This record gives sequence, C-alpha cells and structure tokens, in this order.
Amino acid sequence: MALVVQKYGGSSVDSTERIRAVARRVADTRRAGHEVVVVVSAMGDTTDDLLELAGRVAAEPLARELDMLLSSGERVSNSLLAMALEDLGLRACSLSGDQAGMITTGAHGRARITEVRPRRVREELARGAVVLVAGFQGVHLPTGDVTTLGRGGSDATAVALAAALKADVCEIYTDVDGVLTADPRIVPNARRLDRLSYEEMLELAASGAKVLMSRCVEYARRNGVPLHVRSAYGGEQGTTVFGSVEEQTVEQALITGVAHDRSVAKVVVAGLPDRPGFASAVFRVLADQQIELDVVVQNVCTQPGRTDLTFTVSEQDGPAAVAALLARRGELSLRDVLYEEHVGKVSLVGAGMRAQPGVAATFCEALSSVGINIEIMCTSEIRISVLCKDFQVSDAVRALHDAFQLGGSEQAVVYAGSGR
Amino acid sequence: MALVVQKYGGSSVDSTERIRAVARRVADTRRAGHEVVVVVSAMGDTTDDLLELAGRVAAEPLARELDMLLSSGERVSNSLLAMALEDLGLRACSLSGDQAGMITTGAHGRARITEVRPRRVREELARGAVVLVAGFQGVHLPTGDVTTLGRGGSDATAVALAAALKADVCEIYTDVDGVLTADPRIVPNARRLDRLSYEEMLELAASGAKVLMSRCVEYARRNGVPLHVRSAYGGEQGTTVFGSVEEQTVEQALITGVAHDRSVAKVVVAGLPDRPGFASAVFRVLADQQIELDVVVQNVCTQPGRTDLTFTVSEQDGPAAVAALLARRGELSLRDVLYEEHVGKVSLVGAGMRAQPGVAATFCEALSSVGINIEIMCTSEIRISVLCKDFQVSDAVRALHDAFQLGGSEQAVVYAGSGR
Repeated sequence: MALVVQKYGGSSVDSTERIRAVARRVADTRRAGHEVVVVVSAMGDTTDDLLELAGRVAAEPLARELDMLLSSGERVSNSLLAMALEDLGLRACSLSGDQAGMITTGAHGRARITEVRPRRVREELARGAVVLVAGFQGVHLPTGDVTTLGRGGSDATAVALAAALKADVCEIYTDVDGVLTADPRIVPNARRLDRLSYEEMLELAASGAKVLMSRCVEYARRNGVPLHVRSAYGGEQGTTVFGSVEEQTVEQALITGVAHDRSVAKVVVAGLPDRPGFASAVFRVLADQQIELDVVVQNVCTQPGRTDLTFTVSEQDGPAAVAALLARRGELSLRDVLYEEHVGKVSLVGAGMRAQPGVAATFCEALSSVGINIEIMCTSEIRISVLCKDFQVSDAVRALHDAFQLGGSEQAVVYAGSGR
Repeated sequence: MALVVQKYGGSSVDSTERIRAVARRVADTRRAGHEVVVVVSAMGDTTDDLLELAGRVAAEPLARELDMLLSSGERVSNSLLAMALEDLGLRACSLSGDQAGMITTGAHGRARITEVRPRRVREELARGAVVLVAGFQGVHLPTGDVTTLGRGGSDATAVALAAALKADVCEIYTDVDGVLTADPRIVPNARRLDRLSYEEMLELAASGAKVLMSRCVEYARRNGVPLHVRSAYGGEQGTTVFGSVEEQTVEQALITGVAHDRSVAKVVVAGLPDRPGFASAVFRVLADQQIELDVVVQNVCTQPGRTDLTFTVSEQDGPAAVAALLARRGELSLRDVLYEEHVGKVSLVGAGMRAQPGVAATFCEALSSVGINIEIMCTSEIRISVLCKDFQVSDAVRALHDAFQLGGSEQAVVYAGSGR
C-alpha cells in the first residue's frame, strides 16, 4: 500500500463530466489499496471569471481581497469532487488550504508555503477517506488571512503535501502525456521522456517548458519527492522525475530535450563602467523593483573602460526594468539602456552534455543551417541557451530537435488548455 | 458615533453594478462617522447554481461537502464588496464566517450559531475598516469544518454579530420597503409599519411573512438588538422592530397585519386513543424525523374514547410525516392518517387584540363574507390563524386586511427576488 498525492489541473475538472471522470480515476487508485490525497485546481476558467468580476467593481482590487475571492474557486471544484467520490461509494473529505494546514507567508497573490501541518489530512486518511485539498491556497498565521500561491500554486500545494506526508509519489495530472522532448505544437514527433533527473527538469522548466514550474520541481528535489507527470485523459506511462544527474547518467540519454520561451525580453545596459560595484548596483536596482532576472551575460564593450551588461527578463517586467535603470542613469554612470521585446529563448537541456565538448558545436551548426543568428549565448553544466528573434524560435527548436535526434516515431498527443 | 450592522440579501448584490450601489450606501454610513459591519449573502442565484452543479456529480451530495461548496458563494460577494469599498477610498476587510468567529453546531446545512468570537472584527473596526462578514456560514469546532445556517442564515449572522458587538442597530436591507401589513402582491394598498414589537414580528414571521425569519427575530429579542428592516434600493424609512408588546401598547395599533403561508400541509391523525401518552407518542415520532410542527389542534372525535389530532407541517416534510406515522400505526393505535396539501394558512397578528373580544368575531365574519370555510382555527394572545383551501388564501388576506382597515392610501413598493 502506497501513499499517493495526485494533482489535477483546472482543465481536468472544467465540467461536471470531467469531475466525474477524475473521481473514477481517483477511485481506481483507492480501490487498488492505496491511500490517496488529491489536490485540485479551480474549474476551467473560474479564475479568469472571478478576476473579471473584480475588475468590474474596482480599478485596483486589493491583493488580500483578491485572494479571498480566488480561493473560492478551489472550494467549489474540491467539494464537487468529494461528492462525486462519495457517489462512487468511497469516503471522501474536502479540506480548504487552511484546514489542510498549508501555512504560508503573508505575500498575497504570491505567497510561499512555509510549513505544512497535515494533522487533519492524516486523521482523514486514517479514517479511510480520500482527502481532497484545495490547491493554490493557504493561510497566513497569525492573522488567519487566506493567501494564494500564484502561478503553479496547485503543483506547489501537491508537492509540499507529498513531502510533509512522506508520500511515495506525487502524480501531476496534466493535459499532456508527460514531459516531452519539445513542444509538440512545434515538433510533431516530440517524444515523451520516461524519466529524468530533478536538475534536468529544473533546467527545462526555467527554459520555458510549461509542464511543471521550477518552484515545484525545486521543492520536490529538496524533499526527495518523486514526481510523476501524467495525462489526465488516458495514457498510462507519463514521465517520472526523480534522482540527481549523477545517479542517472549511466542510463541517461545525451540530451533530454529542447525548451523555448517567447515571453522574454532583452535589456542591454550599455557602456557601464567596467569596475567592481557597477554590475551589482544594476542588479540591486532591479531587485528593489522585485524584477527577476533570467539569463545574464556580460560582453566587452568597444569603448575602453566600459562594458555592456545584457540580461533577459519577462516581457511583463521589461518596461519597469528599463524605467528603473534610466531613473538611476547618472548614479550608475551608464551610457544607455536598450530594450528588445521581439526575442525568444531556445534551450537544449541534457545531463549527458557535460562530458561532450561536441554538443556546443552541433548546437551552433544546427542553428546556422537554418539561418538563425545567435544574439546571446549562455550555458550551464547541463544546458545551452540562446536568444534569437522571436519569429525564428520554432525553426530553432525544430533544427535542434532534429540535430540531436530527439524525435520518436509517433506523433505526440496534445490536449488544449492548461490549469493553474 | 454608532456601531451599525447592515445585512444585504442576495438580490441586493446580484450583479457588480448592485455591489457598487451597496458599496456607496455602506460608504455613506461610514462617512457619516459610524462604525459599520456588513453581512452579505451570495450573489443572486449563486446558491441555486452551485446546487445544480452538486446535483450533476452526485445523487445525494453529502451535507458536509454541500456546506463547503455553498460557503464559496459568500466569499465571492463579500470580497467583491470589499474591493468596491476600497475603490471608493475606504478601508475594508472581508472575513469568512470562520475568521469572524461564527461558531456553530455541527449540523451541516442547518447549523445554529452557538457563540460569536468577534476578536478579528473588533480589531479591524479599531483600524478604521468597514468589516464585511460572509453571511450564512460558520465553523464547527473543534473539527474546523465549514457549516451553513440554512434558511434565513444571513439574517442570523447579522443579528448574532450585532448582539456580540453590542451594536446600536442591525439593519436588514431587503427588496421591500419594510414590514408591510400584508403581502403587497395580494393587497396593493398594504401599508408599511413604522415600528412593531419583537413578539408581533415573531408571530408574523411564524405565520408566513417572508421579510424576516423567526429565528432571527427571536435572537434579536433575546439579546435586545433593535432591527431595522429597509429597502436596499431607496426608501428612507423602513420598519423598526424592538421592545415588547407591553412597552408599545399605548401607541400601538389594534392590529399589526395579515400574514399567509401557502407552503403548509395538513395532517390528521384520526381515531387516536383519547388517553394520556398517545398524543405525545405521535409528536415523538415526528421529532425523531426532525419534522417541525406548525399549528396543532385536537378535536373531539365522533368515535367514543378516540380523538382526532390535526397539525400542519411544511409541504416538504408532509410525506415523511405521513410515512413515519403509518409505520407506527399499530403501536400508536391510530385509525388512519389523512393528508391534505392544498391548504393555506392565514393569520391576523396584533398586540392590541388581547383586550378586544370583538376581533375573533370580525375575523370570522370577514372570511364568511367572501365564502371561505375555516378548516382549523388556532389562536395565541396576539394572533389568530386559520387554515383554508389554498385557492382561497388571497381572498382571505384581502378580506381581513379590509375588515380591520389596515390599508394605506398609497400603493406599496415591491421589488422582485429575495435573498438568503
């Protein structure tokens, strides 16, 4: 008998029919003798609908009240799934984030889980019930205020619960068959990966793969929770994420996959004094604005004693980053700030590339063969990322996928929609 | 500066426009210098919509899960109203029933408030915020399970909060101008009452007046909370409910109003042994089924040593009442159980009728003048109720309203819909 945590995204529960289908799947697992904890997102478009209502009553809805509003969505899906399970003859009990002991920071809209107190969850499991926990939400102590966890919040709920309960596995049910070698909308023969290490999954997630959020993978890695990414609509295999690169290298393919991200923007801080302290001052300005940096590279500048600092941020943060830097132009002694939104990031990830000097060469050859000029290149031990024009992203992904022979013989199965 | 508790029903908040209108009204009260606590119901048809979803996933949804589901409705209306208030420049804070300290019994779907612990409400008031409390819901300790209060639950929340906070007044905003002398859909010149005693309001509520539920009035009476029933859409006066019949008799009209209830059904337990213990055995059978009795009368039976016991219950409970009694037929030694659903109850209420022997005569003359036969009659000190055929209810109400000259000179204002 295993203890299994299952997470279902919003598209898996976007109608009462789908809720009943999820209930049948949960019931199968329970009847196979396992203890089951289920984390559900809000039904389909609930979150967007609620946000629209908020927009109609207030120009700038307060984050605290938005969290109270949005947290209602998971209560609905959660209790409906409990009813559907009881209807199948199982015991079930739905719990809010608060009741399940998901303690978080007080940062409304982007709270972090600080502690899990799953007393009630354990009690209900001991009673033989399937326990349903509202994803995406928690409670801030000592105020008792409801918080939400932001993007990827339900995955975070599931992984944190799995860690606290020492679950055997955390299953993430989604609208794809598992983790694929590339986005199947771009690469039709993208192949499902059977398994990969936390590090590789982290690099893929950071590089734009949408199937799992970095924070969830990182939390699973730190707590040794095996993740199993599976389709909510069938497909028995899925992808298992666990273990470190070192543990897996022997049986590991050279390259794991290609990820891309069109939502990045490039900022060039041109003509920054090439002396200690100036780069860190730039980063401090951005940190003060809560802007997260992605790729950072520093080039030599043609002007003596100056350097060009280039980095990527999300398109959303781009204008604020530029404004913040220009406001400190004099203080930072920089010459100019250049901004480019029409760029995309393409990354190759693979644990096996560490010992393979030829990878970078093949990588660049593949891109140049389809006429793509690399704007920025940046590597980690198990990843190579480049920035190119955004209209070239698909070509780049396909060229890399082919060059490293990642394709399978069958078409990948894709389903529309995505949850939170 | 007063402390005011305001309650708005579901129809007052059934769109974002109406939520903004409620926010402006709340803001006016706050800006007049008062402390304000607001209790809101779920938006319009939310509860029905959620119940429909529940019906689609399970044949018999569990009460605990229904409560989790339904409690989401007030979270939405509550947080939206908070946002609308903040948008008007006020401080606001929405609290769930749990956060506001509404402690209840564990009877899901019909929980009773056992205690109010308004620590957080007081803190937020002290901070200068308008405090919004989700109506209709509470928490059962020590499980921490969400409960709902059943019909009239939001009114109960408001009155209990007003009592716990020692509020100066509890304002119930509804879709009528106040408490009227009769249902204006039947009696176009029904008149708004300026004030009446708790006892009169209790009798009216128990007799079918929908504007306030008995439990709410009874709680207000016990705790001395003045109630002010007002229209949510304008109309500055409303009706004040406070004080006892004794305190108010001097300035009191003879008769307060006419109430009616079409949702009753008549049960006749025929040929019950006319000996001690048999009537109580009948009531025990019904109590064990959680069936509430309304009017009870006992008639002499034509058969010697036997009696007929007649009572009314809600139409909803009728079939279960009959089935339970027939199942114990032998044990109770009763001859038969007769059931009649097409009946209605019409009641005349007035503190002044105590000292007026002519009231009953006028009452019966009025009904007979329009050809209505009285099936059952039952009186209290300040109320006369009769049962008649349901198609005669409207005629009976109009006849009584005229006979006791309760009408005003203007048409009453009515608005559609009603909240919970």
